[in-house]
Amino acid sequence: MAPHKAPDSSRRSDRSRRAIYDAALALVGESGYRRTTIEGIAARAGVGKQTIYRWWPSKAAVLMEAFLDLAARAAEEASPQAGGTGGETGGETGGTDPQAGAAEYGIPDTGDLAADLKLVLRATVDELNDPLMEAPTRALTAEGIVDAKLGAEFVEKLLDPQLALYVTRLRAAQEAGQLRPDADPRIALELLIAPLTHRWLLRTLPLTHAYADTIVDYALGGLAPRS
Amino acid sequence: MAPHKAPDSSRRSDRSRRAIYDAALALVGESGYRRTTIEGIAARAGVGKQTIYRWWPSKAAVLMEAFLDLAARAAEEASPQAGGTGGETGGETGGTDPQAGAAEYGIPDTGDLAADLKLVLRATVDELNDPLMEAPTRALTAEGIVDAKLGAEFVEKLLDPQLALYVTRLRAAQEAGQLRPDADPRIALELLIAPLTHRWLLRTLPLTHAYADTIVDYALGGLAPRS
Repeated sequence: MAPHKAPDSSRRSDRSRRAIYDAALALVGESGYRRTTIEGIAARAGVGKQTIYRWWPSKAAVLMEAFLDLAARAAEEASPQAGGTGGETGGETGGTDPQAGAAEYGIPDTGDLAADLKLVLRATVDELNDPLMEAPTRALTAEGIVDAKLGAEFVEKLLDPQLALYVTRLRAAQEAGQLRPDADPRIALELLIAPLTHRWLLRTLPLTHAYADTIVDYALGGLAPRS
Repeated sequence: MAPHKAPDSSRRSDRSRRAIYDAALALVGESGYRRTTIEGIAARAGVGKQTIYRWWPSKAAVLMEAFLDLAARAAEEASPQAGGTGGETGGETGGTDPQAGAAEYGIPDTGDLAADLKLVLRATVDELNDPLMEAPTRALTAEGIVDAKLGAEFVEKLLDPQLALYVTRLRAAQEAGQLRPDADPRIALELLIAPLTHRWLLRTLPLTHAYADTIVDYALGGLAPRS
């Protein structure tokens, strides 16, 4: 956790921030979005509620950032190459470090579209199956489904930046002749990610690496026979 | 509804049943699943709560049936050929009347897989965009996402019977040489329906007939270029 370099006050801030994130995620996972309050988060994190109000304008803002931080941590864990980066949790969401191997950090471009998509969708499977993510992600998604304003914020801040990474990778594939020239990348990505979300949210069938691979094969190759 | 034929007591029962369904759907749409009670449904429907307890074992059971009935009504409305069937709401969910043109009533098999899938996915778009469906479907889906038991019931009673219709249609297509022989119909259907659910639940972009058509084209033809 940012060892050696940070001065004492900054380390205290980092510790408080992490405690607030953890408290917010735990509470929303346990009690749902609506019953989670700034007061409750402050009490559980062991900070004064003024500390939270100083850093965030609203409960939604705390949770959204807690969530971005959680996704960044899960992405690091899911990435086999990311062991060396330790507990860093900077604001570089949406960057393009191919080492991270998960949606938040860009989709690798090895020139093999199927392999790159399988890598990133397998990492997504791991993130969704991570017990740390499970309850808070479900709580936030469920609330966004019934609360249009929160849902829009969720899409804008958490989902769209991830989808943009798919658009970038699929455009590159199109230029390389690996994606149909008439395909709209923004729609094409939905064939890849929506099945995973659907399985996970509705718990229809197990969400596995094999499933992620099959979705990539079916989406790229098509369901109709190739003659 | 059910004019002429039904005896008086049966007509009263039908009327009560419909009033209970409507009250249950309105309440869950307005207040969410958890705050909807049998007492509240009874009061709004103008029946005694014993009437509800006599017919259904639980709140979840009332809502599940109200929902099946709503889906059947929406499917009838969405079907251009179904005008003549009026207000019938029998228990034939999962039947295979190709006239109904929507998932609850079977997927037509004209021999043209793409056309049949576009027809049924367009009908699904209409159902999801139906204001009558909007709030209660969102409330029930959101609750199923955080409540695993309710979610499992939702999948078993409402979703799986619809998915089975896709499996049937896709198997027929496979026998007719219109689906890759190595494709698993149970997985293939997820490329078709999950994108619609994803757009609708998360409200990422508009859910239109053109979108349904594009999903069918991409899923059948594949995203990779055909050489």
